Amino acid sequence: MSEFDLIDQYFKHAATLRDDVKLDIGDDCALLAPPPGKQLAVSTDTLISGVHFPENTSAYDIGYKSLAVNLSDIAAMGAQPAWVSLAISLPAADQSWVKAFMQGFGCLLDRYNVSLIGGDTTRGSLSITVNIIGFVDTEKSLKRNQAKPGDIICVTGTIGDARLGLEAILNNYPINPDIQYCIDRLNQPSPAIEAGMLLPQYSQCAIDLSDGLLADLQHICTASDCGARLNLEAIPLSNALRSYYSDKPAWDLILNAGDDYELCFTCSKNNIETLRDDFANNDLAVSCIGEITTGNEIECYLNDTLLKLAPEKGYDHFAK
Amino acid sequence: MSEFDLIDQYFKHAATLRDDVKLDIGDDCALLAPPPGKQLAVSTDTLISGVHFPENTSAYDIGYKSLAVNLSDIAAMGAQPAWVSLAISLPAADQSWVKAFMQGFGCLLDRYNVSLIGGDTTRGSLSITVNIIGFVDTEKSLKRNQAKPGDIICVTGTIGDARLGLEAILNNYPINPDIQYCIDRLNQPSPAIEAGMLLPQYSQCAIDLSDGLLADLQHICTASDCGARLNLEAIPLSNALRSYYSDKPAWDLILNAGDDYELCFTCSKNNIETLRDDFANNDLAVSCIGEITTGNEIECYLNDTLLKLAPEKGYDHFAK
Repeated sequence: MSEFDLIDQYFKHAATLRDDVKLDIGDDCALLAPPPGKQLAVSTDTLISGVHFPENTSAYDIGYKSLAVNLSDIAAMGAQPAWVSLAISLPAADQSWVKAFMQGFGCLLDRYNVSLIGGDTTRGSLSITVNIIGFVDTEKSLKRNQAKPGDIICVTGTIGDARLGLEAILNNYPINPDIQYCIDRLNQPSPAIEAGMLLPQYSQCAIDLSDGLLADLQHICTASDCGARLNLEAIPLSNALRSYYSDKPAWDLILNAGDDYELCFTCSKNNIETLRDDFANNDLAVSCIGEITTGNEIECYLNDTLLKLAPEKGYDHFAK
Repeated sequence: MSEFDLIDQYFKHAATLRDDVKLDIGDDCALLAPPPGKQLAVSTDTLISGVHFPENTSAYDIGYKSLAVNLSDIAAMGAQPAWVSLAISLPAADQSWVKAFMQGFGCLLDRYNVSLIGGDTTRGSLSITVNIIGFVDTEKSLKRNQAKPGDIICVTGTIGDARLGLEAILNNYPINPDIQYCIDRLNQPSPAIEAGMLLPQYSQCAIDLSDGLLADLQHICTASDCGARLNLEAIPLSNALRSYYSDKPAWDLILNAGDDYELCFTCSKNNIETLRDDFANNDLAVSCIGEITTGNEIECYLNDTLLKLAPEKGYDHFAK
């Protein structure tokens, strides 16, 4: 199967086209009609086999995760996803692999009404780069530099599951329902699009959790010139993770766990109750885990006892 | 040097920011304000070492070409380039390589007033994916499916230089000024942005020449359900190429030469004289090389004698 056949068969009709896509795959560019009065939120993420996912990850999960991590960046701006471009390098034109990849990718296209508008297919070691474009109301986006001392720090969902899933895969842990749950969280993270779109009413500051809670909260603190106090007992853990760690969570691992793809955001005390009600009414999980401070460090307390826990710097592709 | 240092030092301040970039590199997404009433033209191209450029290509030339080929797609729509995202995989964090790469890339950012708005830096075999966004007036874009029988077929610039440049590099030809000219055309193609932006007044149909004139013209013919007659003696060749081929151009090579990054477009007979004048007034080279026909094949004539020259299919990444 040639590159052109691959594109025709699997990429060109991956999803129903949105009305704002005026010309899709097959010309030199796609042509798109952005909605008047909105800003565009644009992000790019590359996933490389063996770095961003274990080499034995299924094609479906690679497709799913490639789009999920980009949707997560859109969620972190409070934006609505619209269009994606997919650049994929493949070692060979393996039809069944491409078909399964596009099923995983297409599942999220359909769920969030996103159109695949173009891309490039090349031969090389397995690597996927997705560029995503969303819309956000001017002055209503969520930025890392908008945290204020006194703001409540919140997270969506639960933290640390994907890290345990990765540990389980790399060490061949026996599969039980808890481990499988964590592996699923690693391979099919849920981008917090719905939460992100509720947030601009209550918050101006968010980040998505890709590098680990401490590292990503540190990005907020650095950009906003502030510190943070975390209350570890308030950090939301899944039943699977609680069960695995029995009564003593490994906080150093959990707080530096990558791949959560939840949102961490701040909210003024005035807004926090309304926000919690709104999330509850929309069946969205949110936890208040600490407070922004005037300091320049993140301090972690467990039941009011200060623990020594330094943020790792996040995954560095060029660290030795 | 870490990934974060690389981004900070070389990518974050690669070019002066446009006013319509409301938030640039450093958050989960860039935020952009598109101009009202325009459509967005969006394209993605991946360049892989050893496939899209010889492995010994300089970092400057790789940076230059990565952006040039994407600008060429924007030119082929008659659009104005505005914003790019750069996803780059590197085997190592080589500062001097990255610096030179960004000088080549930045040279075209500056020339066309394009802002680098984001991207991703990962460790892997050398691969560059650029996503570009431009603006075009609604109903004024250039599409492959708009050629009409009787239209004149035109090309900008000259054809076939880059192919000879590649042949010279791969076979270690002795360097003379003609060969060097062709190597420069391969490594630093000139995207036809100015020509593309003039075209919508006169034309509705264009493609950029990346796979070779015959293959790319075939894309127009297929999309427009028509054929074409080419007059080979009218095809513009550089002095370097004429000198190399002395009096007998190798048409089969020239017409299937990739990497020209000129535009091939069609123009009604009514508009052709005004177009030629406008191009001449703007110091832009254009040649009329044939005519769209009612057939379904491309026929090549040399001084009215029909030659047997079939289009190659274009570079296929998965061909055996």
